[in-house]
This record gives sequence, structure tokens and C-alpha cells, in this order.
Amino acid sequence: MQVSETQWSTQEKEIAKAALKTAHNREIQSLINVIRERASGVATIDDVWHLNDFLSARRFDIDGKYDDRESESLFVLAKLTKDGWLAIEDLLGLEPTKLSKITALTRVL
Amino acid sequence: MQVSETQWSTQEKEIAKAALKTAHNREIQSLINVIRERASGVATIDDVWHLNDFLSARRFDIDGKYDDRESESLFVLAKLTKDGWLAIEDLLGLEPTKLSKITALTRVL
Repeated sequence: MQVSETQWSTQEKEIAKAALKTAHNREIQSLINVIRERASGVATIDDVWHLNDFLSARRFDIDGKYDDRESESLFVLAKLTKDGWLAIEDLLGLEPTKLSKITALTRVL
Repeated sequence: MQVSETQWSTQEKEIAKAALKTAHNREIQSLINVIRERASGVATIDDVWHLNDFLSARRFDIDGKYDDRESESLFVLAKLTKDGWLAIEDLLGLEPTKLSKITALTRVL
């Protein structure tokens, strides 16, 4: 399956860009909700440092995941779909072959 | 002022150890309260990472500050007093010369 040299039309680039933004917003909102819930339950110093470790890990993951380089788009969209931040409906407008590749990648990532 | 080779009686060691524990408990409880308050106001991704940075900085500070080596006791107790986690009343039972040194150190730390 050839994925890294896939060609993207201007419209598809816009769809991919919008999907990344949608996924990012969803993931951040979810993270904020989790932080509020976890923080309200913090009772010991271990809880505090666990929250710190959790935030550092989420930051590392999120900082690396939203790669907007065209060559990475299929992988990024597939990973976000696999993780539940995107649905195939968010990607409608992409060529059917791209959607098939994204669906296939969600099974191997 | 000679501080690093100060001799500590068994009773004084106990007082210093108890004071460290008291200060640690107070600082941690304060930190937990701050976290709960800050977390409830988190609304953006920047707020999330600021909270992460804040926790990392507090961890670095707290991990380094509660040095229980006897040679460091006067400095540690003075720093905790200066920062408001201890009052001189928490140190009663120490020799008057030690209390004077701690009070003097709070002005230079």
C-alpha cells in the first residue's frame, strides 16, 4: 500500500486540515474534563505527582501526534480515527482510495 | 556564623525532623488546594500545559528542599520559615543559638 507519496488536492488538504483541528479540539476538551475530574480527587502528594506525570505524557503524545505534513496525513488521520478522535464521517470528501487506506491503517497502527 | 558543623542533640534532631514533616504536610496541602482551584479553571490547552509546568516546577522545588541531612538542617529550617511553612514556634526546644542562627538565615536566604 503506497501511502507516503499520495497526492492531495487542494480540497482534500482542507478536509484533512479541518479534521486535524476537529480531532485536536475533541482531544483537548476530553483532556480538560479528565484533568478537572482527577484534580478534584487529588488527596496526597503521590496523587499530585501522578497528575504531573499524566500531563507530561499527554503533552508528549499530543505534541507529536498532530503532524500536519502532507506525507504523514494518512498515518495521522488513521491514528486519530483509531483512537476515537475522528470518525470516517469527518473525512468525507477525500478520495475513496484514501478512505480505504486510512481504514486499513487503523487496523495496523 | 558557623552553621554547617552545628551539633544536634537527639531531642533536637527529633524536633527538626518533626518540623520538616509539619512543613512538608502544610506545603503539600497548600499545593493540593492550589491544584484543585487551578484545575477547575482550566479552559484551554495553554492552561493545561501551564498547569503541567507549574507542577513540574513545584516538584523540582519540593524534591530538593526537604533535605534531612544534619549538616543542612539550619539552612532547610530557615528556608521553610522564610517561605512561611514553619513558624519559630514550630522549632521551640532547639538551643537558643540555633534559633538565632535560623532567624538570621531567614534574612539572607
